[in-house]
Amino acid sequence: MRGTFEITATDPGSAARTGRIATAHGIIETPTFAPVASQGTVKALLHDQVERLGAQVLLVNAYHLFLRPGPDVIEEAGGLHAFMSWPKPLLSDSGGFQIYSLSPLVKVSNEGVRFSSHLDGTKIFLRPEDIVDVQKKLGTDIMMTLDYFLPFPSTQEKMKEAVRITSDWARRSKKWFDQAPSRQLLWGISQGSIFWDLRRQSIEDLLEADFDGYALGGLGIGEPKTELLAILEKADALLPRSKPRYLMGMGYAEDVIQAVARGVDFFDCVLPTRNARNGTLFTSRGRIVLKHQKYARDFRPVDAGCDCTTCRNFSRAYLRHLHERDEISASVLNTIHNLNFYLDIFKKIRQSIQSNSFPEFRDRMLHRIEEEE
Amino acid sequence: MRGTFEITATDPGSAARTGRIATAHGIIETPTFAPVASQGTVKALLHDQVERLGAQVLLVNAYHLFLRPGPDVIEEAGGLHAFMSWPKPLLSDSGGFQIYSLSPLVKVSNEGVRFSSHLDGTKIFLRPEDIVDVQKKLGTDIMMTLDYFLPFPSTQEKMKEAVRITSDWARRSKKWFDQAPSRQLLWGISQGSIFWDLRRQSIEDLLEADFDGYALGGLGIGEPKTELLAILEKADALLPRSKPRYLMGMGYAEDVIQAVARGVDFFDCVLPTRNARNGTLFTSRGRIVLKHQKYARDFRPVDAGCDCTTCRNFSRAYLRHLHERDEISASVLNTIHNLNFYLDIFKKIRQSIQSNSFPEFRDRMLHRIEEEE
Repeated sequence: MRGTFEITATDPGSAARTGRIATAHGIIETPTFAPVASQGTVKALLHDQVERLGAQVLLVNAYHLFLRPGPDVIEEAGGLHAFMSWPKPLLSDSGGFQIYSLSPLVKVSNEGVRFSSHLDGTKIFLRPEDIVDVQKKLGTDIMMTLDYFLPFPSTQEKMKEAVRITSDWARRSKKWFDQAPSRQLLWGISQGSIFWDLRRQSIEDLLEADFDGYALGGLGIGEPKTELLAILEKADALLPRSKPRYLMGMGYAEDVIQAVARGVDFFDCVLPTRNARNGTLFTSRGRIVLKHQKYARDFRPVDAGCDCTTCRNFSRAYLRHLHERDEISASVLNTIHNLNFYLDIFKKIRQSIQSNSFPEFRDRMLHRIEEEE
Repeated sequence: MRGTFEITATDPGSAARTGRIATAHGIIETPTFAPVASQGTVKALLHDQVERLGAQVLLVNAYHLFLRPGPDVIEEAGGLHAFMSWPKPLLSDSGGFQIYSLSPLVKVSNEGVRFSSHLDGTKIFLRPEDIVDVQKKLGTDIMMTLDYFLPFPSTQEKMKEAVRITSDWARRSKKWFDQAPSRQLLWGISQGSIFWDLRRQSIEDLLEADFDGYALGGLGIGEPKTELLAILEKADALLPRSKPRYLMGMGYAEDVIQAVARGVDFFDCVLPTRNARNGTLFTSRGRIVLKHQKYARDFRPVDAGCDCTTCRNFSRAYLRHLHERDEISASVLNTIHNLNFYLDIFKKIRQSIQSNSFPEFRDRMLHRIEEEE
């Protein structure tokens, strides 16, 4: 059934749970990590590599795809799954974050958002309804509402206005979306930063509009970690257990574990892929920064305990050589490793919840030695 | 047996032949195309992708690897095959061409060549014996002698001097190489441009020194095509049938066919890989330049007759989108297609010679419609 979210196991000592989101292109087992594929490709990887790593869902970006190649081209191709030739679930971010962070001359009104394309300066006006239409043309499995994102820190007064507009846009999005039956899901995004009164208001407004899932936006952008965790705990109490929750853009492994313990099901982050391209590799014993001279004659794999293609075949010295020479294959091999590292953590999170050992796994993750080797 | 070259079929109407070069890391079926992997990786591809495309041998560059990571690091790793984790044959170019084309302040003497590293300006002096030693540390299957390369056009007088030095260096390289038994092969490079007297002298000098294979260097750099083909024909008559011949750096499919008909066995070229990264794709009906607007809604594969991963899964419109957005996966997918296109031509060349249909295949290749679709 469209948008069914079934909880399959729970951790007795926390809000952590495993579940299954049913989408038009298959099941997503949660907690899950969506690799970022803003333009319709995970940067540096081919789809079959991403699939082999165990990715269940990719995150694409409605803002980027709206600008290029445009929703009409994608619709003409038969939707985004057909255009990019990816058969599994896709979640499209509405692009709110990108509009506010990438575009010059952004102006928000009750009606919508006016901005200039960061590519060629074209002036664009988009209403929340337009963003629903764009995502309908993309045909993604999970669509996100347009929100009004503010940087951290912002004043309580400004944030109050952002929440008001975000809630209004969410209601309009839902109303617009409901006009036609759809196999696509629509998730709402809450704002309010770490002001609990505002965040609560934002979530309550979304709940009233009744979405298929609920996202926490505008977090993980500089606010104190303890305050963030407090917000997650309070949100957990407020949100229905029966719908998936998505913590947008947050990605350090330690934070993920803490968020899962507070009932979050869905994550995305550019961290593993972007760091890979910059030559920073995640390992079970800390990070490896390939440019450092000490790896020039280090013929060990990146992570002896890792079974990814990169670690099974190549040494730190070779990866360093490729990285230093700006070889494209450095980005490819590093991305394979980092993405494997992330997706593997999520596999272990799911397994630990299902086997009643989440507390032990959580402790182990939080007390790992985090030093560069 | 080390360096055995066995001819397996010949075309009755031309000098074309198929053969097998035995190396320490396996057999190379000729005529063959060596994808360029200057730094120890085919640009944009992983080794398993290159292997699946049917590559039998890669070309690496002693000049680049000498500068970074350095022959000692590679020797410590157990040789280049181990360092880069490539189990099949490797041919290392001596780097003559790169020294003369990339380095500032090149000065050639009888003793050797003085130049500055194009990476950091370090002053370096290398004798032909040093280049043999570098390649011994690399442990490549086929090593090339250091030659003295001049651009086209150069005067006959200058070319005469280049040939004299090239021959002297080749003799010294062979003598140095012969001091210790080796499973590696050493091929000599002739120079002389399209001056037949000089080219003949160069080849005769190499023959006297007795190499495992013979390369024609300094061609395909702007000289008239008819003159080049005349040189290949005359060289064919002069070179022993029993040794492989290598036409360095030349790559347009039409030229390859003509060279094979004149007895050439071995080719390398950056054309398929470099063009791929620039968004130019080779097809059986001509080239596709992805940046052109007409591909924006062209949902056909690059080449309907092609069975590569790229053509089986992705459209011109999607590849154009990835290319325009500077996505790394554009380089990967385009390189897979172009390299498949090249390696496939060589498969067909070998098949046509073995099935006595080389003249027909040659005609078909030379009369293809070469227009952009």
